[in-house]
Amino acid sequence: MNKPGLISLAGGLPNAAYFPFASVTGEILVPDSFPLKTNSEESSLSWFWKLFSRSDKEKTATFTVGKYPKHSGDLALESALQYGMASGQPKLQEVIHEFVEKVYKPDYGNWATLVHTGNTAGWATVVQTILNPGDGVIVSEWTYPSAIGAMQPYGSIPVPVGMDSEGMSSISLRKTLAEWDESARGMSRPHVMYTVPIGQNPTGTTMGIQRKKEIYDICVEYDIIIVEDDPYYFLQEGKYVPKSERVSETELDDEAFIASLAPSYLKVDYQGRVIRLDTFSKTVCPGARLGWFTCNPMFAERLERATETSAQAPCGFTQVYVTSLLLNWRYAGYIRWLKALGLQYKQRRDYFLDCFAEEFHLQPSTSMQDTAGATMYYASLKPKRTFIPLSEKDTAFSKPLFSLVAPSSGMFVWLTLYFEDHPSFSTMGYKALEVKLWTEIAEAGVLFAPGAIFSPIPVEDDTPGNGHFRVSFSNSNPEELKKAVTVFGAVLRKFVRE
Amino acid sequence: MNKPGLISLAGGLPNAAYFPFASVTGEILVPDSFPLKTNSEESSLSWFWKLFSRSDKEKTATFTVGKYPKHSGDLALESALQYGMASGQPKLQEVIHEFVEKVYKPDYGNWATLVHTGNTAGWATVVQTILNPGDGVIVSEWTYPSAIGAMQPYGSIPVPVGMDSEGMSSISLRKTLAEWDESARGMSRPHVMYTVPIGQNPTGTTMGIQRKKEIYDICVEYDIIIVEDDPYYFLQEGKYVPKSERVSETELDDEAFIASLAPSYLKVDYQGRVIRLDTFSKTVCPGARLGWFTCNPMFAERLERATETSAQAPCGFTQVYVTSLLLNWRYAGYIRWLKALGLQYKQRRDYFLDCFAEEFHLQPSTSMQDTAGATMYYASLKPKRTFIPLSEKDTAFSKPLFSLVAPSSGMFVWLTLYFEDHPSFSTMGYKALEVKLWTEIAEAGVLFAPGAIFSPIPVEDDTPGNGHFRVSFSNSNPEELKKAVTVFGAVLRKFVRE
Repeated sequence: MNKPGLISLAGGLPNAAYFPFASVTGEILVPDSFPLKTNSEESSLSWFWKLFSRSDKEKTATFTVGKYPKHSGDLALESALQYGMASGQPKLQEVIHEFVEKVYKPDYGNWATLVHTGNTAGWATVVQTILNPGDGVIVSEWTYPSAIGAMQPYGSIPVPVGMDSEGMSSISLRKTLAEWDESARGMSRPHVMYTVPIGQNPTGTTMGIQRKKEIYDICVEYDIIIVEDDPYYFLQEGKYVPKSERVSETELDDEAFIASLAPSYLKVDYQGRVIRLDTFSKTVCPGARLGWFTCNPMFAERLERATETSAQAPCGFTQVYVTSLLLNWRYAGYIRWLKALGLQYKQRRDYFLDCFAEEFHLQPSTSMQDTAGATMYYASLKPKRTFIPLSEKDTAFSKPLFSLVAPSSGMFVWLTLYFEDHPSFSTMGYKALEVKLWTEIAEAGVLFAPGAIFSPIPVEDDTPGNGHFRVSFSNSNPEELKKAVTVFGAVLRKFVRE
Repeated sequence: MNKPGLISLAGGLPNAAYFPFASVTGEILVPDSFPLKTNSEESSLSWFWKLFSRSDKEKTATFTVGKYPKHSGDLALESALQYGMASGQPKLQEVIHEFVEKVYKPDYGNWATLVHTGNTAGWATVVQTILNPGDGVIVSEWTYPSAIGAMQPYGSIPVPVGMDSEGMSSISLRKTLAEWDESARGMSRPHVMYTVPIGQNPTGTTMGIQRKKEIYDICVEYDIIIVEDDPYYFLQEGKYVPKSERVSETELDDEAFIASLAPSYLKVDYQGRVIRLDTFSKTVCPGARLGWFTCNPMFAERLERATETSAQAPCGFTQVYVTSLLLNWRYAGYIRWLKALGLQYKQRRDYFLDCFAEEFHLQPSTSMQDTAGATMYYASLKPKRTFIPLSEKDTAFSKPLFSLVAPSSGMFVWLTLYFEDHPSFSTMGYKALEVKLWTEIAEAGVLFAPGAIFSPIPVEDDTPGNGHFRVSFSNSNPEELKKAVTVFGAVLRKFVRE
């Protein structure tokens, strides 16, 4: 990093000879480790058997990175394990830049990327950099709790706007901003938005290009910076098709695959008002603690300065491992990996919703079929141990107990619980009933995430509303997913009759 | 982490089968890679030749960590690369706890440790957790700039106190607190102190136990939390002995070695008011981005919560590598490594100061021989190209141009520049002269760190004072160190006559 011939005694750098690592080696999976299509003839559990037969069949490649580079520009521990610039290893910067250009296709020329240590830390850095204490931040009415938690130490105040099955509502956003009453609110109109547009956490919604354009235009009008936290971008699973109607997947070439994904806000950002947060947590592994910002160069410079007085730079080992992985796979290999990964999550999503369809009677909502392909289902109890189709008059069972949005991306199914008919509703209210039901499910051996934690503003005992659960299908095995839904059904049957 | 039999669908965890790393391998140096004693017969460059002959003689060991554990409790990528608790891998926690207990010997029982991503990030987390905007923080009059930078976004205000050759002055501290005038200062008396007591950055001072006790007692009296940032703890080099008087090192056993080190504030902390920051940056490598807090369990719990909404946890790769290294070496091996590392820095320090003694006439200050072994030298020019002892009457050369504190720990030599006799002193002042001299040295090919950046409060053009440079001997090779001092001498000769 020094000029040739310049002797720097300015820094406080240990000599690399004192780094006790002579070399590091990684054994990595090959990009085509998971299949690109499903066969409807095969068991719907093929994704699962593939996972658990891995130990015999796993195909791997290896790389080794030594302390000193063999060729100029090579990754080497000498520099990767040294104090480094907050912008990260040059090779990693190149790989990320190529990826953003080819996949997200930003709408202006001089965008910049900057590595960070994961989207939550990235968001905290944004908050520290562009917000003043007491500033409001536009968020969705249901939001990732750590994003709210990261704002609190900086005195930023969440301003929730309404959602529909495509995520944040442009109508609700415009209304919130147009009707902003500074004195009633006790703060100025917000100039920053935090949003998870794909696989929205917790509701599982996917926002299409049309909605993004509407929201972007409103943000231009009201001068709002959009912070797009998009960890689930490559977990776009498409519309849920009930098991009986499902057909084999068709394989897409790389360009068709990228075109099939709901685009990033970067694609419509002609003014440089989007700060996009990408992470390797869902596509490589969460322990990498590595991701990046894509934004205009002025924002990138400020974020880099803020990084220098906190994380300083992402861990050198993770830079070595993720960079070596991506250099080994190359762009095409990583796209191959991402395609197959998306399919894995699609199969998980399908299997999990199939479990719900077996346990409950699911009735698609006719009004909430959104453009991005999510469908809302009303769920009612099936008559126990019979499979006779429900008569419309059989009100004891046809009344929906909850609804679920069949997600078209991400890891989560969002349940909205209808407690109005519960015997204790008038005395307990929905919040206490949510806690009660959550506890009963947990006592029966299944942990759901309680809905109240995803509210960006405190939920009071007498706040009107419905109960919610966020339920993840990302990690458990099929028996666990099946059992969880069965347990939920059994607890719910008991719960509604209490 | 789940109860046996409990099915958790609450989190958003990817399945470990999707982590593309099958195994990682590290080739590590053995603990006795560097010698434990020097021989005065040997060249003073033996540390250097040892480094650069490494490629042939390096003795290494290897470890491999696979995706799934062979035995319960083993390190495994399945958990290390997953979302993890902010407290880190259990094996790493154990290693750190044992180390703190044996080396720092805290003065109370229920102290806790918590991993962080490096001392600067750790300090930023402390600021976020225990300070409110507008709160003052006691710092030394010369302070690590990133520590000040980390405070700024939180609105914390540095309150500098005076230093002597042992670091922060207890007299100046008491005076600052006793005379605190809330209305004149515009803020309450501070309740937090930030201090680098060993190898102080930038001044290179070392604080002994007596001074620490004095400062601790004042902090008890005024209810101040001490944040001890101690990255250079194992770089305790002892008193500088001029080359002609130097004798061979004696080898210390482990207990004698630990007893020979200036103790941590933890050793005198009977009230739990110390938050100690340790890092692997100087003892393993900076790219590890790994360190830990040692503090009372109440503070640890708050720091853990703050970590959850920012870094979340240190990188999984670094946890695997540092933990495996320390498990491989065991406690005794790590102590062996640290002993030898300290000796390497001692030899570097000695060589660098020898270069100064060759280039300049160094006169030890009789008044500043402190208890921790640092000595201040006044440096004047030697008559060019002659080695005739200076006559006391030869005022042209005997007048000191700068002083240096021969550090007894750390990486830095701190120069205080006396500009009063410079022809432009009355018109330019010391700050502009510092910049001018720094620029001339840089243009001659040597980078020093300019002193003004280490002032925690802004230095104005007309602030009275002396110029300063911080000069590091930690990373360069002997030719570079020698050349840097020679260049400095040549530039200085020209500078004083301009």
